[in-house]
Amino acid sequence: MFEGLLADLVQNLKKLPGIGSKSAQRLAMFIISMEKEKALELAESIQNTVKNYKNCSVCNMLTEIDPCHFCSDYTRNQNLLCIVENTQDIYLIENTNEYKGKYFVLNNLLSPLDGIGPDEINFPKLLELLKSDGIDEIILALNPSAEGESTISFLASQFEELNVTRLSTGLPFGGDIEYTSSLTLGNALKRRYSVKD
Amino acid sequence: MFEGLLADLVQNLKKLPGIGSKSAQRLAMFIISMEKEKALELAESIQNTVKNYKNCSVCNMLTEIDPCHFCSDYTRNQNLLCIVENTQDIYLIENTNEYKGKYFVLNNLLSPLDGIGPDEINFPKLLELLKSDGIDEIILALNPSAEGESTISFLASQFEELNVTRLSTGLPFGGDIEYTSSLTLGNALKRRYSVKD
Repeated sequence: MFEGLLADLVQNLKKLPGIGSKSAQRLAMFIISMEKEKALELAESIQNTVKNYKNCSVCNMLTEIDPCHFCSDYTRNQNLLCIVENTQDIYLIENTNEYKGKYFVLNNLLSPLDGIGPDEINFPKLLELLKSDGIDEIILALNPSAEGESTISFLASQFEELNVTRLSTGLPFGGDIEYTSSLTLGNALKRRYSVKD
Repeated sequence: MFEGLLADLVQNLKKLPGIGSKSAQRLAMFIISMEKEKALELAESIQNTVKNYKNCSVCNMLTEIDPCHFCSDYTRNQNLLCIVENTQDIYLIENTNEYKGKYFVLNNLLSPLDGIGPDEINFPKLLELLKSDGIDEIILALNPSAEGESTISFLASQFEELNVTRLSTGLPFGGDIEYTSSLTLGNALKRRYSVKD
């Protein structure tokens, strides 16, 4: 049904996460019905953002200014380093208001079968950062997935002299024991803590 | 949290239908992490489409070529005219494979309180089209909403000499009587048809 430029637009929109064929068609139809000016603003905004965002030369996060505003903010705790998989995770952590240290973005998790080794998780750059800074604790804020666990093991083995921590694992708030995997539940039992904590 | 160009992009993405703050943030993060080339293709595709789509001078649908390929396709039934609210509805009707006539897009439904009268639903252009063509039947494929019903009444009153029909109303396939409004259910009773039809 969709032809020419409209078909191209649908294809391009489908590359976005969570946008299937139906949504892409709906968005495309909306875009051609929008005020031209508003649609062109959107396109320009994508171009400007994409052209101006790059990886921070210190921590790797995607940023408009280099070094990023976390790396150049010396009011943050300079002895704490939180290692995350991607830039979005930084925003999620910032939203919690529980952390005020430095960050480092791996951009990948170890997955030797997919050819993702230490170089692909920016390990050399991480070593560089650790060399120049007085980091006391490294927080590995990585997913408790297979790749996350490999990456946690690898990094923990490399920094044995440092205090390396990871996010707590257990039942999510609002979760239901009935729908929790036995792996999670077993871990939650093993890692139980005093109600006074 | 989001600043500068990224905040602009989030604002621009939020103008799209079905995209709230969270989705806009997610899409924006995805866009800045994408291969630059792919993201720029998306932006360019929006620009090309928006710049090249205009209303068909005959039927009003949004189209890359004028007249649109429905208006210039003389293999379609030239005596049937289906009137729809917007271009997207044409694609939805085409998908059913039940219709092979001409189209006309109103671009609005009558809503006097919002200042939407006959001019805003392109009534003069519709009269123009009807003057030059040998239309036998007009199908009003409009939503059975308050505005749709007003528009149906208005158009029906203007074309009393023609065969004016509307889409059937009743229970949707896969629908459930329990969750059907009594208006719909009452109408479905009134318009019941023989199981042999």
